[in-house]
Amino acid sequence: MSKQVRICMIGAGRVGKLHSGTLKRYVPDGDVVALVDPVSAMLNQTGDEFEIDGRFPTLAEALDKTDFDAVIITTPTFTHRELTLLAAEHGKHVFLEKPMAMNLQECDDIIAATEERGLLLQLGFMRRFDPEFVAAAERIFGGEIGEPMLIKSLTHGPGLPPAWANDIRTSNGMIAEVNSHDLDCVRWLMGSNPQRIYLETANFKGVERGAHAEHFYDNMFATIKFQSGALGNISGVCPCDYGYDARVEIVGKNGIMQIGSMQGMDVVVCINRDQGLITPIYRRWPERFAWAYIHEIQHFVTCVQTGTKPKVGGEDGRWAVASVLAGTKSMLEGRPVLLEEVLDPAWVVPWQKED
Amino acid sequence: MSKQVRICMIGAGRVGKLHSGTLKRYVPDGDVVALVDPVSAMLNQTGDEFEIDGRFPTLAEALDKTDFDAVIITTPTFTHRELTLLAAEHGKHVFLEKPMAMNLQECDDIIAATEERGLLLQLGFMRRFDPEFVAAAERIFGGEIGEPMLIKSLTHGPGLPPAWANDIRTSNGMIAEVNSHDLDCVRWLMGSNPQRIYLETANFKGVERGAHAEHFYDNMFATIKFQSGALGNISGVCPCDYGYDARVEIVGKNGIMQIGSMQGMDVVVCINRDQGLITPIYRRWPERFAWAYIHEIQHFVTCVQTGTKPKVGGEDGRWAVASVLAGTKSMLEGRPVLLEEVLDPAWVVPWQKED
Amino acid sequence: MSKQVRICMIGAGRVGKLHSGTLKRYVPDGDVVALVDPVSAMLNQTGDEFEIDGRFPTLAEALDKTDFDAVIITTPTFTHRELTLLAAEHGKHVFLEKPMAMNLQECDDIIAATEERGLLLQLGFMRRFDPEFVAAAERIFGGEIGEPMLIKSLTHGPGLPPAWANDIRTSNGMIAEVNSHDLDCVRWLMGSNPQRIYLETANFKGVERGAHAEHFYDNMFATIKFQSGALGNISGVCPCDYGYDARVEIVGKNGIMQIGSMQGMDVVVCINRDQGLITPIYRRWPERFAWAYIHEIQHFVTCVQTGTKPKVGGEDGRWAVASVLAGTKSMLEGRPVLLEEVLDPAWVVPWQKED
Amino acid sequence: MSKQVRICMIGAGRVGKLHSGTLKRYVPDGDVVALVDPVSAMLNQTGDEFEIDGRFPTLAEALDKTDFDAVIITTPTFTHRELTLLAAEHGKHVFLEKPMAMNLQECDDIIAATEERGLLLQLGFMRRFDPEFVAAAERIFGGEIGEPMLIKSLTHGPGLPPAWANDIRTSNGMIAEVNSHDLDCVRWLMGSNPQRIYLETANFKGVERGAHAEHFYDNMFATIKFQSGALGNISGVCPCDYGYDARVEIVGKNGIMQIGSMQGMDVVVCINRDQGLITPIYRRWPERFAWAYIHEIQHFVTCVQTGTKPKVGGEDGRWAVASVLAGTKSMLEGRPVLLEEVLDPAWVVPWQKED
Repeated sequence: MSKQVRICMIGAGRVGKLHSGTLKRYVPDGDVVALVDPVSAMLNQTGDEFEIDGRFPTLAEALDKTDFDAVIITTPTFTHRELTLLAAEHGKHVFLEKPMAMNLQECDDIIAATEERGLLLQLGFMRRFDPEFVAAAERIFGGEIGEPMLIKSLTHGPGLPPAWANDIRTSNGMIAEVNSHDLDCVRWLMGSNPQRIYLETANFKGVERGAHAEHFYDNMFATIKFQSGALGNISGVCPCDYGYDARVEIVGKNGIMQIGSMQGMDVVVCINRDQGLITPIYRRWPERFAWAYIHEIQHFVTCVQTGTKPKVGGEDGRWAVASVLAGTKSMLEGRPVLLEEVLDPAWVVPWQKED
Repeated sequence: MSKQVRICMIGAGRVGKLHSGTLKRYVPDGDVVALVDPVSAMLNQTGDEFEIDGRFPTLAEALDKTDFDAVIITTPTFTHRELTLLAAEHGKHVFLEKPMAMNLQECDDIIAATEERGLLLQLGFMRRFDPEFVAAAERIFGGEIGEPMLIKSLTHGPGLPPAWANDIRTSNGMIAEVNSHDLDCVRWLMGSNPQRIYLETANFKGVERGAHAEHFYDNMFATIKFQSGALGNISGVCPCDYGYDARVEIVGKNGIMQIGSMQGMDVVVCINRDQGLITPIYRRWPERFAWAYIHEIQHFVTCVQTGTKPKVGGEDGRWAVASVLAGTKSMLEGRPVLLEEVLDPAWVVPWQKED
Repeated sequence: MSKQVRICMIGAGRVGKLHSGTLKRYVPDGDVVALVDPVSAMLNQTGDEFEIDGRFPTLAEALDKTDFDAVIITTPTFTHRELTLLAAEHGKHVFLEKPMAMNLQECDDIIAATEERGLLLQLGFMRRFDPEFVAAAERIFGGEIGEPMLIKSLTHGPGLPPAWANDIRTSNGMIAEVNSHDLDCVRWLMGSNPQRIYLETANFKGVERGAHAEHFYDNMFATIKFQSGALGNISGVCPCDYGYDARVEIVGKNGIMQIGSMQGMDVVVCINRDQGLITPIYRRWPERFAWAYIHEIQHFVTCVQTGTKPKVGGEDGRWAVASVLAGTKSMLEGRPVLLEEVLDPAWVVPWQKED
Repeated sequence: MSKQVRICMIGAGRVGKLHSGTLKRYVPDGDVVALVDPVSAMLNQTGDEFEIDGRFPTLAEALDKTDFDAVIITTPTFTHRELTLLAAEHGKHVFLEKPMAMNLQECDDIIAATEERGLLLQLGFMRRFDPEFVAAAERIFGGEIGEPMLIKSLTHGPGLPPAWANDIRTSNGMIAEVNSHDLDCVRWLMGSNPQRIYLETANFKGVERGAHAEHFYDNMFATIKFQSGALGNISGVCPCDYGYDARVEIVGKNGIMQIGSMQGMDVVVCINRDQGLITPIYRRWPERFAWAYIHEIQHFVTCVQTGTKPKVGGEDGRWAVASVLAGTKSMLEGRPVLLEEVLDPAWVVPWQKED
């Protein structure tokens, strides 16, 4: 049997819990040996729940006191660069949650830090490991629907994210926090990089939910022109309240393909003919992507065991960040924005500039 | 333009209204010129609603005072023989609702009365005109799923039928009033006559709904062995309360086919993630078989205009009645019953015998 | 019974045949008494098929030689203004196919011509009469999903339209010929007029199909900002080859609603487990909107009989044309365009200007 | 962390592989330390694939040479009694695949052997651990659809089982090998034991597939009357060729519930409008019940770790065997058979009697 991979989980919140549970319940080859969170209540609660003995307020302390092979970083976006660099410095492989970073300079630093030391870097785009998305991608790449012409991808999340994730200055906003998955997914499935993006946004629930950031929005459409000439549309709604909704529809020269549905389970009930048939909806993302979360962690563990490069890495994360920046710039300037505008090394993200 | 067909509608109740509405709204070539019902309130209500001028308490009076080409008989089963014979005597073509009659002797009388005079006789098995059933039948007969091995057909109706329709002495009960459609449908789609039938029944709601007939049942499974060797299952529930449900599933040597669904409309809503997705169910039979009712009446009108024999007639109605009788006998005797037992001319339906 | 409405059908092509068939088969209260088409072969073919006696090369001749109450105009967009004005001059009610006209001046002329004489004008937006769209609209307006925030509407058509319909100079292109229905539909369901529109297009099949017009495109996304603040996305693909596809998805503050599906019939077959389940798709628009075409024509007939204003008229047609113009301008100028730019009476459609 | 459970897998064939793979990939707390199979080629192939070191031709040898906590028995039905008794004698907990045994005497021996020594006995009815069946059961027991009146359960398997499994003398035939799951499932969901059963069978593919056992059948309907008065229908087809199909439909006094579907994945494709929409079907049982297989093994491992009685055990297995026997007797005698006939200790299964 291959050597078990020892992991330090950074962040004891929602995503940290999800990955800790996945490792404990479904991944015999991986073991969470250390948990890092500055909030001790959460550190202990998550540590207790998943029987993790090593608990530390900082990664530095964990590095100092425990031995492990890899880190899984689940903390807010603005911490990604610093944590990755510290882990890499100590020779740890890195599984990094999306969005990769705040801007392209940070992405470049992260890529350089891991590549220089020959460390693995996997991005948390779990859709790449979802059985439906994987099967669909194979069929698209196999030519079944012909050359892709048009794609729609949506992510609608039920609840309002935390304040830092709503404010474009601290997170680049919803297009980053919610729709990074779509930005990666459409580039992957279309086999082409985005060339131009146009963003329209709306704010319907912000005030009543206490979201007061200057450019807050809870609805968006991103229209993308790909380098291949194809078109993309990404839809984001958060909070949508009605469930967790992630679906893709793609039209090729020969046909159409739909990936995913809202239906959370094949159980249909009718107890009132004036109401009709009732079927469960996916309530939260861990339900929708249950297999995907297991498979992405198993993939990372196997890559660490075998020294294989992960299927989704820094370059993919960087393209998603570039799309986030171009989209946000489009919203602020009311015009379509070329990706090359934000890929220009001379350009500095104005909404992140310190005063 | 072909000559308009003049019709006398017998029965001003639910089915009489349905067919009158169909003719008025969707069948330019047919016209209801007379309406017959002994209950004058209902006669006038239905007559007013569909602007039918000729209104009569009896068919005899309608025949005496109006000119028409055909009758549509929508009255209780036990009246079918007498009404058909009277209509046929006056040279009228007959559209006869299901079940055809109370027993095989009545069926034979009806067939003879119309055949002798060269009159058309169409049975009200509207599934034979439903676009989905028609398309499915063509594909089955074309060999798409291979030789049929097994079929399931269900009809679950929302509300308790009237008292006469629940009492096997006056109607042969639910297998006749609700499941005649299935009995015809499985014989049609399997391309084989039934050989043996076994009926299990249950009574769950009778008492609370005031249905006190001796052999009342509101749930049944009829298991059929066809002459071809294939198997059939018919499910009946009435009152099921949850909607109107009519579906078929058939397995052939090469594959499976499903016909129909519960979903009444392609409108899906979710407004509560704990509840899930909601889709309309078919509430009543006129919704489910809206096209079928139009097409069966248009077919009858065209047959009358052109002198063509209808696609579904007396022989089909007779087989459904034979199956009803064998099924009921099976229930009463607790054993599988061969169709040849009830097809024997010497056999008299014991539950219909007058004391 | 109400007086039968006498109709002159203008255009003996695809749409003329559809409406003639609808009237002959399903609308007892309307009668096509005259058919107009300059191409005599088509005139006779369609006239024979639907048993229409009056056949004329021009509307002028039909007006001269026959008596009728109303016209149904199914000819190319650039003929709409002239035909409507001639019909109105002779006191005929008008059912006008979409798109209403080439530009807003023509729309205004059409509205004025009918309104001045108290004539009815119904636009051919059949989705307003589709049972699913009607039920959905009632539920949206009843508040079931809350205030609408975001809508997606798509129309993908199987085959390449005729050359005049692909050239923006003669038809305003695909957004007009294919997606006018969506433009009307989103405005109706959102209860708000469009404020700004951004169009991205792509051309994948033009060359191989022989479509050489300068601005030809076969894929498009129109992104709309409504006056209410809500967002819209319209997707157009033509020729898509895979079927006829028309669906809407709308998200309100309380939930989501989907209207329509690709599934053309509830018949599911599996005969090969490596291939999977097969279900019919809607092949063409007459299948998808079978009920809608019947109901819109019945509505027009009833409006003529009773002197009632149709549910969908000139104002609706005019808004769809305005959206078409703003969208096309957006595509040509590579920027979002405000509706007020094209609603400005001083603005002349540059791509329609004669040299 | 709880102590890892050491398991001896008995049988290296299809089911042995499935459970070995589940333990290796998804169950951190269980470990296959020994594999038993008399066929050395299969023993080594499966041993290699799942990296199992201990490999033995017999359970006796494995018991002699290795230490483990529990066995998983996946061999043919007629071996179950002997293997269970041997394992129990050595104090091993037992996970036993369905059908439990050939007859009720064997069931009683198995129950006695484990109970006497306080050993756990779990039956391989994985549907009890499928997320959809579990959720459905909770809702039924919670009263959502009211008192159950009628249930349909089907299992259609793609390929012909091995010869021993087709011959009622060596396996009790298809109702045992394929439909044991349904027999357990309907009893569980209806909350009532079967009282009477009637079996109709058909043989369509036997000859062409080389199945020549005397009472071979490849299609069956079992009609059940429950002690509660409710009705059940079980459908079996094997080989059905078209996929693996397992679904349940249940009607209660208040409504209907459907559990499961044929659709293997939410990926829909259309590339030919004359063919229609294509969706994956479940090809084999490991796909359909992927979660169920993981959860049933995790449940067994947890029960062993904690000394808890499994949710599904000997009593459940015994009722399924009793139903198998009553159904087979019904087929052979052409009449409904009461369960009490086969539960009578004096009754000996005639088709298993040695000559």
